[in-house]
Amino acid sequence: MSYQIFLTIGLIAGIISIVMALYLRSIVLKQDPGNERMIEVAGYIESGAKTYLKVQYKILGAFVIVLAIALLFLPSPLENSDTYTRLTPGALNWEQATAYVIGAVGSMFAGWLGMYVGVKANTRAAQGCSVSTKKGFDIAFFGGSVMGLTVVGVALIGISILYWIVPDPNIVLGFSFGASSVALFMKCGGGIYTKTADVGADLVGKAEYDLPEDDPRNPATIADNVGDNVGDIAGMGSDLFDSYVASIIAAMMLAASIAFTRANVTMELRYYFVIYPVLLCGIGLLASLIGIFLIKWKGSEDPGKSLNAGTYIATLIFAGLSALFTFFLTLAVQETTVVAEIWRLYGASIIGLFSGIIIGFTSDYFTRDDKAPTRNMAYAAQEGHAVVILSGFSYGLLSVVPPAIGIVIAMTIAYLLGGIFGVAMSAVGMLSIVGTIVSNDAYGPIVDNARGIAEQGELGEDVISQADRLDSAGNTAKAITKGFAIGAANLTVLALLFSFKTEANLLSAGTIEIIDLLTINVLIGAFIGVVVPAFFSALLILAVQRNAAKMVDEIRRQFEENPKILTGEEAADFNRCIAIATKGSLKELLIPSIISIVIPLAVGIIFGVSALGAFLAGAILSGFVFAVFMANAGGAWDNAKKWIEDGHLGGKGTETHKASITGDTVGDPFKDTAGPSINTLLVVMSLTASIFLGLLMVFNSGAGLLVF
Amino acid sequence: MSYQIFLTIGLIAGIISIVMALYLRSIVLKQDPGNERMIEVAGYIESGAKTYLKVQYKILGAFVIVLAIALLFLPSPLENSDTYTRLTPGALNWEQATAYVIGAVGSMFAGWLGMYVGVKANTRAAQGCSVSTKKGFDIAFFGGSVMGLTVVGVALIGISILYWIVPDPNIVLGFSFGASSVALFMKCGGGIYTKTADVGADLVGKAEYDLPEDDPRNPATIADNVGDNVGDIAGMGSDLFDSYVASIIAAMMLAASIAFTRANVTMELRYYFVIYPVLLCGIGLLASLIGIFLIKWKGSEDPGKSLNAGTYIATLIFAGLSALFTFFLTLAVQETTVVAEIWRLYGASIIGLFSGIIIGFTSDYFTRDDKAPTRNMAYAAQEGHAVVILSGFSYGLLSVVPPAIGIVIAMTIAYLLGGIFGVAMSAVGMLSIVGTIVSNDAYGPIVDNARGIAEQGELGEDVISQADRLDSAGNTAKAITKGFAIGAANLTVLALLFSFKTEANLLSAGTIEIIDLLTINVLIGAFIGVVVPAFFSALLILAVQRNAAKMVDEIRRQFEENPKILTGEEAADFNRCIAIATKGSLKELLIPSIISIVIPLAVGIIFGVSALGAFLAGAILSGFVFAVFMANAGGAWDNAKKWIEDGHLGGKGTETHKASITGDTVGDPFKDTAGPSINTLLVVMSLTASIFLGLLMVFNSGAGLLVF
Repeated sequence: MSYQIFLTIGLIAGIISIVMALYLRSIVLKQDPGNERMIEVAGYIESGAKTYLKVQYKILGAFVIVLAIALLFLPSPLENSDTYTRLTPGALNWEQATAYVIGAVGSMFAGWLGMYVGVKANTRAAQGCSVSTKKGFDIAFFGGSVMGLTVVGVALIGISILYWIVPDPNIVLGFSFGASSVALFMKCGGGIYTKTADVGADLVGKAEYDLPEDDPRNPATIADNVGDNVGDIAGMGSDLFDSYVASIIAAMMLAASIAFTRANVTMELRYYFVIYPVLLCGIGLLASLIGIFLIKWKGSEDPGKSLNAGTYIATLIFAGLSALFTFFLTLAVQETTVVAEIWRLYGASIIGLFSGIIIGFTSDYFTRDDKAPTRNMAYAAQEGHAVVILSGFSYGLLSVVPPAIGIVIAMTIAYLLGGIFGVAMSAVGMLSIVGTIVSNDAYGPIVDNARGIAEQGELGEDVISQADRLDSAGNTAKAITKGFAIGAANLTVLALLFSFKTEANLLSAGTIEIIDLLTINVLIGAFIGVVVPAFFSALLILAVQRNAAKMVDEIRRQFEENPKILTGEEAADFNRCIAIATKGSLKELLIPSIISIVIPLAVGIIFGVSALGAFLAGAILSGFVFAVFMANAGGAWDNAKKWIEDGHLGGKGTETHKASITGDTVGDPFKDTAGPSINTLLVVMSLTASIFLGLLMVFNSGAGLLVF
Repeated sequence: MSYQIFLTIGLIAGIISIVMALYLRSIVLKQDPGNERMIEVAGYIESGAKTYLKVQYKILGAFVIVLAIALLFLPSPLENSDTYTRLTPGALNWEQATAYVIGAVGSMFAGWLGMYVGVKANTRAAQGCSVSTKKGFDIAFFGGSVMGLTVVGVALIGISILYWIVPDPNIVLGFSFGASSVALFMKCGGGIYTKTADVGADLVGKAEYDLPEDDPRNPATIADNVGDNVGDIAGMGSDLFDSYVASIIAAMMLAASIAFTRANVTMELRYYFVIYPVLLCGIGLLASLIGIFLIKWKGSEDPGKSLNAGTYIATLIFAGLSALFTFFLTLAVQETTVVAEIWRLYGASIIGLFSGIIIGFTSDYFTRDDKAPTRNMAYAAQEGHAVVILSGFSYGLLSVVPPAIGIVIAMTIAYLLGGIFGVAMSAVGMLSIVGTIVSNDAYGPIVDNARGIAEQGELGEDVISQADRLDSAGNTAKAITKGFAIGAANLTVLALLFSFKTEANLLSAGTIEIIDLLTINVLIGAFIGVVVPAFFSALLILAVQRNAAKMVDEIRRQFEENPKILTGEEAADFNRCIAIATKGSLKELLIPSIISIVIPLAVGIIFGVSALGAFLAGAILSGFVFAVFMANAGGAWDNAKKWIEDGHLGGKGTETHKASITGDTVGDPFKDTAGPSINTLLVVMSLTASIFLGLLMVFNSGAGLLVF
């Protein structure tokens, strides 16, 4: 039996997934889009989102072309049947450059399709709520699933076909780098966009003029809704797309090196190891698909529970199905010691998946309004603005500890089961059901938008409160998916780091075998690495703050110059707000995006490949701390505010409420801009290191310009 | 010429320093303590501070006795003339346990003396201001110098005598550990105390009742003043005492190992290397002394400039004098290759000192109200509470980058000059003029208190504004000394880490030669290490928040139950506020203090000595990020508020001002509790690793219980 048969499973799963996505899309489009005003509002949102994406894709296009050309000339390592060689000097690296472009285009396509359906689903979900909450839920959930299925489908199809044509993981590495560089732009830009609009709308509309959320009189309302789509749908989708592909490629690279380092694995057998991660992900996708179609919310209990139930079902189906296919694979392999090893790798992937879910739960604990941390933050709001900030800051930092323990345990067990390849497989396992995760996640902004459209389309208090219920379910699911995304990205970049080191070792013929932390260049690398996530977060938050200030000025100007906007007699000029968010976010994303490629390159060239390894390790660990801290502090502040708005501790309008709004506003760029962008930053930096490894070897054989 | 001659210089400098401290103390005590009300207030502050220290020292006493007994039984490495051996099993380690107790007692003595003079100097400085600002300045500066000189004097006398009696750096290691465990208690406890009182006083007094700073009607005013003494004088003093001793011991340990690893250094020559750091510190102390007596503020220009001028003068004198004594040392050594090496080490120490000053300046830039960051934070306050927080958070994170670059450059040059011993010497160089640094630092809380006493003693607007001027000079100097302290601590713990690894290598006979970052136990160690400073900060800030809430309740209760307090007809019951701060801080310091010893031990026992090395590296790097971020964000928020209070952007009472108070209140525990405690945490964890190294070798020869 040839290994390609198992590769086919990934390909087939990918194709099924895209077909299902298109089918769900057609279901969503068939629904009633609601009254004229709703169609109008949804149209504004759609056109705002499309405008943004168009400009974004233009810039991205230029960026991708430049990098593709650079890759073409790069002395990148390519496998040469049974040995690792560098490309012949002067030969152009067409394979990797092409794969890079395919990855970039695939990621853009997934983002575009997901958002295209998202902006259609929102008004239909709002209208659905006026029939029944269940109908609203179904439309939103299907809309979100389109994104989830597209992301995973495109990834699997791309990887399977590329590896089929050129069975060298280095090609897939190019694909992954393409996906990641797009993701970084999408995530940073989308994150800045959404929070520019959100913070601006809140600071003036809510705090100064006491307007409710999504009020049509607020000029930034539409920009805020657009932001949900570009930040939370397209941005989050490309983030998980990127982690997903990266986790697969890390495992493939490590698998490919096995034949060079282990006696019991032949070059032939090696292929089974290399495609095993692809196989598992194909099965994960099928499990996600089944999960999506098994989930039928009955309309009575908490819809958030149904979303989470989908995650559990997918997990269990995955565990069963993948055991079955692993069994088939072992039949094909036959060699006893290798069979045992594959089963241990299976175990590592299951460990990864379960630990992902556990990490999601701890995020949930730290951000739920019925648990101590968020409750205490709400109480702290009674003491004023400063105390609620201090409280959230502390609990956010505390919340880093449980997932860190979770990752350490998962990593330890996975390592004991399968060495560093086991660690990579645990990342693959964690991300195998990413289809479900992205679907649940994209559900959130759709219902959030639906709520806004229901408000602006004047569907009445009843419908709005139903949409609210769906919205709050989205927030519950989001806490878990966000923790999941961080945990998965973290394990993925660790796996990438191992693969980077293994490649460096092979390329240097054993010179770069260890990364001794207490040699000075390595220590310097680690030092710079630890600082980078802090620096990167600061740049993003400053960008949001700068843009939000412009937005605030614009909203104030509109209210002052035309008092009829506030009375509702005349419409606000929301196009100017959209323009501010679009222009600002596209301008501000450039520097953070570029440093994520330039800094690792500079470290590698100056201090050497070992220092670059330590740089990545430092960035990964400190990035984990910042990502979890910001995601959870932000989520908890948000929920503490909502809990107070539900009438606790005096409810809306009190000083306590105002203090809680301060917490929420501080948390906004934490949880939706800087925090989630760190994941992508880490993946891009890790892939940059691997892709440019061949180049780095040019400088004193990888020891760097500054040899100690 | 025997090496002891050079050791004597350290001893003599220490003795001169103590004599001078006692002389300055007598000058301060001779001054007029002011009117009856001032004496009364100063008496309250003094008794509050003493009560706190008494209880603190009781707990500390018990802790020290327990640890001393533990050390007695510890299989600690001791040198055996020309080889490294473990103590004979069963033999009691009297030497190290005794040195530990001496170090602890020395640190307590320095803290006590410094604070004793501080609480006497405050009222005298206030009274001095009513004669002339210059007189006030001189009294405060002399008072602060007592602390500075005592700290350094005690350290040098202790180290010189101990090494004279038992010429083994492991003994001095015990001394350093004693100093550090006391420092951790003093720093955590003092930090929680001072901010409990400060935040509580501000939240109710300033924000709710519009009382000015230090208003005698505010029941927490005295507790706030006591806090300045226990936190900023005793706490900061013991912090720098601890870094100082640790930097010397790290260099001594590395020097001692040189004879075992280098061919050109005989056992005899080795002693010159070992005492070289002590010699340089002795000279640094003399330079500080000269600096202190040369500084005569003329009463016209900015007093902050005079304080900084003292630092520069001490730096230059140190550079010259130490070159002279290094020359004498090389005369005694004679061996050409070794002489060249000593000169390179001299260069490393000078590099360290200059980079310390540069790091101080970057802190100054990020916290000065006439520079962009603080100015922008003040502008951000116009957009409300949330935006000023986001702004401070971002600038705080950005401010990590320049000192990180500074440390990387210093480390690189020092390494190129003298290897890891060179890095240790750069830390020694940075800390050589610590006498000046502590003096300038202790000046701050004295004038801060003086201002309060002038207010409460009703010395009139003129005198208060003079005291204000002195106070603001203290803040300027503080920004630099704080950056300095963090940079110095960071280089010190890096040096300790190198010394730890070198010892581990010698003890394991070469088994633990490298710390390979990408082995799983090492990676896990680094992961835990990176998380610890975040966890530790969270615990301390939560402690402040919890205690401040109690303080707030108490102040509100007093105002509500007795309205005559607010009219000034009846005195507030400040003793209850003092009791809350005392009790709370002593209770809350225990857990953070204990984890700093328990976590490194647990990592070493479970994951092994290499993992512990990586743990320390992770904690040092992430601790650096958190320490700098919190110190600078806090300082900038404070100054942005003061700038607004000076009448800018509308001045006091505006919404902008209120937002800036929120920033300041959030920054308080950042800059005065969590941030500075991280330094001490890192030193204690590093010393714990070195001290317990012999014990850790018991578990699978240092590989840990969980062998991978």
